[in-house]
Amino acid sequence: MSGGLDSYTAAAIAKNGGFELYALSVLYGQRHAREIDAARAVAAALGVARHLELPVDLRGIGGSSLTADRYVPRDRDLDAKEIPSTYVPARNTIFLSFALAWAEVIGACAIFIGVNALDYSGYPDCRSEYIHAYERMANLATRSGAEEHARIEIRTPLIDLSKRQIIELGQRLGVDYALTTSCYDPSPDGAACGHCDACQLRLRGFREAGTSDPGRYAPEVDDEPVGEPAR
Amino acid sequence: MSGGLDSYTAAAIAKNGGFELYALSVLYGQRHAREIDAARAVAAALGVARHLELPVDLRGIGGSSLTADRYVPRDRDLDAKEIPSTYVPARNTIFLSFALAWAEVIGACAIFIGVNALDYSGYPDCRSEYIHAYERMANLATRSGAEEHARIEIRTPLIDLSKRQIIELGQRLGVDYALTTSCYDPSPDGAACGHCDACQLRLRGFREAGTSDPGRYAPEVDDEPVGEPAR
Repeated sequence: MSGGLDSYTAAAIAKNGGFELYALSVLYGQRHAREIDAARAVAAALGVARHLELPVDLRGIGGSSLTADRYVPRDRDLDAKEIPSTYVPARNTIFLSFALAWAEVIGACAIFIGVNALDYSGYPDCRSEYIHAYERMANLATRSGAEEHARIEIRTPLIDLSKRQIIELGQRLGVDYALTTSCYDPSPDGAACGHCDACQLRLRGFREAGTSDPGRYAPEVDDEPVGEPAR
Repeated sequence: MSGGLDSYTAAAIAKNGGFELYALSVLYGQRHAREIDAARAVAAALGVARHLELPVDLRGIGGSSLTADRYVPRDRDLDAKEIPSTYVPARNTIFLSFALAWAEVIGACAIFIGVNALDYSGYPDCRSEYIHAYERMANLATRSGAEEHARIEIRTPLIDLSKRQIIELGQRLGVDYALTTSCYDPSPDGAACGHCDACQLRLRGFREAGTSDPGRYAPEVDDEPVGEPAR
């Protein structure tokens, strides 16, 4: 649970499907630590059974503008196919591994992750081939897998959705996106920059869904839906 | 690199094979934090290019007598097939995920891990089926895998060896096992207990190899090779 809109929507889908929720947030030395406050608000709104915040300092590994003191790109072409500098090496593999350990301890039968192959086409660990390989490995890695009962499923309900579809689905499920934050490079007062990849994807999604983004942006950012006058 | 004899031997094999070594130690809230001092001594002895110590607090996940305040079993039957309480859920999956992230950043072509299927038959994540599934997943998870160059191999040179064979191989490669510590439950002065699974396996291995264990044990522990009088 990152505090962004994808993990919130994925969790709302799980809840709507009758699952009891155990939410995991990884504190990984990201620049945008404000995400954790958003994650707590989202966990509370969902009524999770438990919210585990797991600290791990990935800065020693480096390799990403999200964990190192490196420039976060602004107004990048989202349709470019290269892997952006915000890619955190093996991040989903690390996150899923924590989730797998916890799932084994609490006896969970599924891990929901809000990965999305369309919007993050440059991220290798958001593709369904990767998720299927992870699930296969996970069931060999664990006590439950080894004992051939209670397999663990990796569920990716957003993997083939556009950001617009994710937002429309979340709104039907009653999520409150005002609680969320997505920006990779917020200002000191917490306003989203409107120019990093995450902001661009999010703003475009809300525009295409024909609704305003309830997130808080730096003053000059146009967060109105397409076709309506900017404030 | 745990500070135990398996990871040291696996690293010595890699070095002997011409690899430049980057050593990763995970500080995971284990009871036996003294392992880290041993890992540093081992890394120095091997002349590694870098030794990364990565802190992650797995105690929030729980589920193991190594990370929780639970009793470490003594004099357990090593041939019993149940999974022991010292099993840390998904531990190798978590460790390999950190290694994978670092491997991607530094451009490493192989990850060596000292897992052993014979001595740890109760641990699902020490089996070769698991390692193969991990390797397959790893090459889908990463930038290099996605770009179809520079695949990452997971190497497990000890997986089919007995502890005796591991010790004999290490000794041929000139490792200094006096630097290592294996005990799950050392005394406050750092002496190994001689009774936990790790001590039992290690003592048996040295006995079968016909040599004394250079590790430091609590006074009553018999660490002499088979057939020789106890001190």
